[in-house]
Amino acid sequence: MPKLVIIGTVALDNIRTPFGEVSNALGGSAFYAGLSASYWTDVGVVGIVGKDYPEEGFSVLARHGIDSKGIERSEGLTFSWSGEYTYDLNTAQTLRTDLNCLLSFNPVLPESHDSLETLFLANIDPEIQAKVLDSLPVRPSLVVLDTMNFWIEHKKDALQKVLRRIDVLTINEGEARMLSGQFSLVSAARTILGMGPATLIIKRGEYGVLVFNRESVFASPAYPLEDVRDPTGAGDSFAGGFIGFLTSQGKFSDDTLRQSIVVGSAMASFCVSDFSTRAIEGLKRTDILKRLESFSSLTSYQALPLMSLRTEG
Amino acid sequence: MPKLVIIGTVALDNIRTPFGEVSNALGGSAFYAGLSASYWTDVGVVGIVGKDYPEEGFSVLARHGIDSKGIERSEGLTFSWSGEYTYDLNTAQTLRTDLNCLLSFNPVLPESHDSLETLFLANIDPEIQAKVLDSLPVRPSLVVLDTMNFWIEHKKDALQKVLRRIDVLTINEGEARMLSGQFSLVSAARTILGMGPATLIIKRGEYGVLVFNRESVFASPAYPLEDVRDPTGAGDSFAGGFIGFLTSQGKFSDDTLRQSIVVGSAMASFCVSDFSTRAIEGLKRTDILKRLESFSSLTSYQALPLMSLRTEG
Repeated sequence: MPKLVIIGTVALDNIRTPFGEVSNALGGSAFYAGLSASYWTDVGVVGIVGKDYPEEGFSVLARHGIDSKGIERSEGLTFSWSGEYTYDLNTAQTLRTDLNCLLSFNPVLPESHDSLETLFLANIDPEIQAKVLDSLPVRPSLVVLDTMNFWIEHKKDALQKVLRRIDVLTINEGEARMLSGQFSLVSAARTILGMGPATLIIKRGEYGVLVFNRESVFASPAYPLEDVRDPTGAGDSFAGGFIGFLTSQGKFSDDTLRQSIVVGSAMASFCVSDFSTRAIEGLKRTDILKRLESFSSLTSYQALPLMSLRTEG
Repeated sequence: MPKLVIIGTVALDNIRTPFGEVSNALGGSAFYAGLSASYWTDVGVVGIVGKDYPEEGFSVLARHGIDSKGIERSEGLTFSWSGEYTYDLNTAQTLRTDLNCLLSFNPVLPESHDSLETLFLANIDPEIQAKVLDSLPVRPSLVVLDTMNFWIEHKKDALQKVLRRIDVLTINEGEARMLSGQFSLVSAARTILGMGPATLIIKRGEYGVLVFNRESVFASPAYPLEDVRDPTGAGDSFAGGFIGFLTSQGKFSDDTLRQSIVVGSAMASFCVSDFSTRAIEGLKRTDILKRLESFSSLTSYQALPLMSLRTEG
């Protein structure tokens, strides 16, 4: 029985980067987030695929103990994203988006998901995100929502409505500026927190994340990797690790928030080291522990001795 | 008697940002770095100014206890930089550079600087940086060097020669890629550490710094500010705070390195909050202590409870 339910896309991706390319590769926001979260808690994925979707996708989910009863098999074709990255791996250029069966996506949570505690509404139409919230008999104790520039531009009202009903929003820098109309991220965060979510996670690609809530600001770097091969899914792997760990802790405080951000960052660092979901499938315990240790060493420093500070007042 | 000697430019700047403009404002790499370092140790500044340089510049240095005997007064005009920033405050567009008296800069350390322990060679011609090292009877225990794209492009041999003689190099992301010929910063760092310096500080503007040495990697964010008014001097204020604090500690370990990076980042965060050197002049003890506390809160998190990690191996 999943404690965490993730609703989003299950896709077949065509990706080209300076380091190679893949076609019809397993992907999609809910797929990446689900795999990443599965290392930390019981996960159910809700999405839709077409008749062309390979059984391999379901096997991967099953091997990670993920409940896929919420993935509808439709008569159409699977949602497909084709994108390209140049050496600046921070921004993808979308070559083609084939919505296909996503156009008829009407997510319904199966009965096995009745005991959900946390919900991740990955990046889809904010009207669908709202309908999912409407359909739940009890509000989960934590709702995380991801969105993108397209919805901010074309469905801002629907987006603002659903923002009032969630706890954590994850968006990237440019989207935070677009949504708030403010250039300074500190000002942007204040405006966005005023729209509803108690916590805002601003994703900055290879520079990590900035996290704002009413209490504090937390900055977590991206793990500096020798080789980044494919950034696709980094944000979703981050979100999955984040909410997966948070769900496992069973409480939402500033302390667990920060710890969850670090877990999310570590999971994202695995994701980008290889194409598609290759690197976040079948991760070993020792790999994860080692990466989390490196993360701690990456940012920690001893308390400052301040007797040399020379000014008064 | 300065323990830290800083050699670089003393300038009059003309700066325009979306938030205002100043002309003939106090600036220059050694001036910014000197002020920033003066909160932590005894500083001497070595540079050259013209007959148009205002007495106010010397008064500011004196108020901060900085030894300015090493600043030569020449018959020409003071070095002047004119630049503009758009809303993306990360990159300056240089409108005009008037080298003026800088063309005849031949730095000579006055006798009062004989007891120097640490040396900051701010961004000037690498041949001059090497001549300064040649002129010292005893090598300081720590030498930090800053440079820029212009020297990497036009005096790479001279630069590589001087890199073999220093301890810490500070450059920005683009320059690290240019100097190493590598895109990945981890690979770039390995290549650059192979050129001589034991420590490499990669400056990433509003994203903070990445620090590489043979032992470890350290990431420190930039402090998220509501209002950044003028980024001029941020890198020099960072370097000044960094080497100033490090000098005050009297030892160079991975621990003091990390602490010094945090102090540098805090000093830089003051610098950018107002035009020219306004914000790093006359800082109060409480302001600095408060900012350092905020910095610690910005990056710290509690050890991760890992009993929920579900994978084996």
